[in-house]
Amino acid sequence: MPHTYDYPRAALTVDCVVFGLDEDDLKVLLIQRGQEPFAGRWALPGGFVHVDETIDQAARRELQEETGLSKVYLEQLYTVGDLGRDPRERVVTVAYYALVRLGDHRVQAATDARNAAWFAVDDPPRLAFDHDAILALALTRLQGKVRYQPLGFELLPPKFSLTRLQRMYEIILERPLDKRNFRKKVLSLGILEELDEVEQDVAHRAARLYRFDERSYRQLVKDGFNFEL
Amino acid sequence: MPHTYDYPRAALTVDCVVFGLDEDDLKVLLIQRGQEPFAGRWALPGGFVHVDETIDQAARRELQEETGLSKVYLEQLYTVGDLGRDPRERVVTVAYYALVRLGDHRVQAATDARNAAWFAVDDPPRLAFDHDAILALALTRLQGKVRYQPLGFELLPPKFSLTRLQRMYEIILERPLDKRNFRKKVLSLGILEELDEVEQDVAHRAARLYRFDERSYRQLVKDGFNFEL
Repeated sequence: MPHTYDYPRAALTVDCVVFGLDEDDLKVLLIQRGQEPFAGRWALPGGFVHVDETIDQAARRELQEETGLSKVYLEQLYTVGDLGRDPRERVVTVAYYALVRLGDHRVQAATDARNAAWFAVDDPPRLAFDHDAILALALTRLQGKVRYQPLGFELLPPKFSLTRLQRMYEIILERPLDKRNFRKKVLSLGILEELDEVEQDVAHRAARLYRFDERSYRQLVKDGFNFEL
Repeated sequence: MPHTYDYPRAALTVDCVVFGLDEDDLKVLLIQRGQEPFAGRWALPGGFVHVDETIDQAARRELQEETGLSKVYLEQLYTVGDLGRDPRERVVTVAYYALVRLGDHRVQAATDARNAAWFAVDDPPRLAFDHDAILALALTRLQGKVRYQPLGFELLPPKFSLTRLQRMYEIILERPLDKRNFRKKVLSLGILEELDEVEQDVAHRAARLYRFDERSYRQLVKDGFNFEL
């Protein structure tokens, strides 16, 4: 197809920051690059946008091709277009981010990625391109969201203890929270449903389990609130 | 320069949603297109990103070229890449938005824009491309920000009455607010400085003037809050 705008043009890519959570860490999904530039280096999953797909489609396709992950809700994060961020040529990238339950997603490398794996966000390998900066941006966005949106539906297992929920906030915010204060605030949001079940197979006294009430949770995402922790 | 990634590629543009405020309305800055497609139709100022400039630079350059506006703080809004949004070819656009004091900026059309002018946001002309949708997105973002950030520094004159400030919120939120409640909340934010001056040349009883304390205002932008109105 001839280009109407007949000048040199930037290439367009997408990159995906996928966060997952385990007991101890916030994790990010990375792939090991199979080809130059940065062959062997870890990077965010992503790649070139085809001319006949939307950028959202490109993000979903690249994530699936490179890591095997599908059915992930990717939210647009930011578009980064600094000069010289790719040694090959001018490349502008639309960054996306997503939260997933670690247990739900078996990761497998595919296509031009050698390898795909989860890394702790607070101790990632040195990344290709400007992916360190994009990861930092996604983390800041996530930490910012804690302030005015409920969080956890996409990260926690369907049933969880309040200790687990608090631990999630502590991991994301990177600081300890006061237990009594946390419980009071989180219960007052009206998005938690107390279950008639307790934890199984734990060494300590089994704690009560909760789950999110999806309807009030979604409503609160929409309405926002102020969650001073 | 040869393309490393040698496939048809999307063209990349920027578009700017610039909001201004007068006594009665929230306004948006539009240009009238001088060429096809959509010749004669009003549109957001914007244009193609050059291969040797950042996308931020492109947004500032296009805004200045097409409307004469410079020194505007443009914030990235969203990147829109639907297929078929431009009849010429595949075009992905990075949308920016900005708030400006209407009085500070004399608007003048230039380059390929026939004309540039301010339009009331609630009654804009039919726009070229998908610019209606981009304008709606910017308005939603602005209305969302009211909830957790102070607003007005970029929109109001340096000195203003509380009535003027309330009117700004009412215009943006598109609903009336309770005067007593509004004053109590806005004063409690600690970002307003009461001046030893009153309004000049007004028909009604002259009201006390205020200005923003820039330092605490900026701090609150950074920290966020919950402004239930």
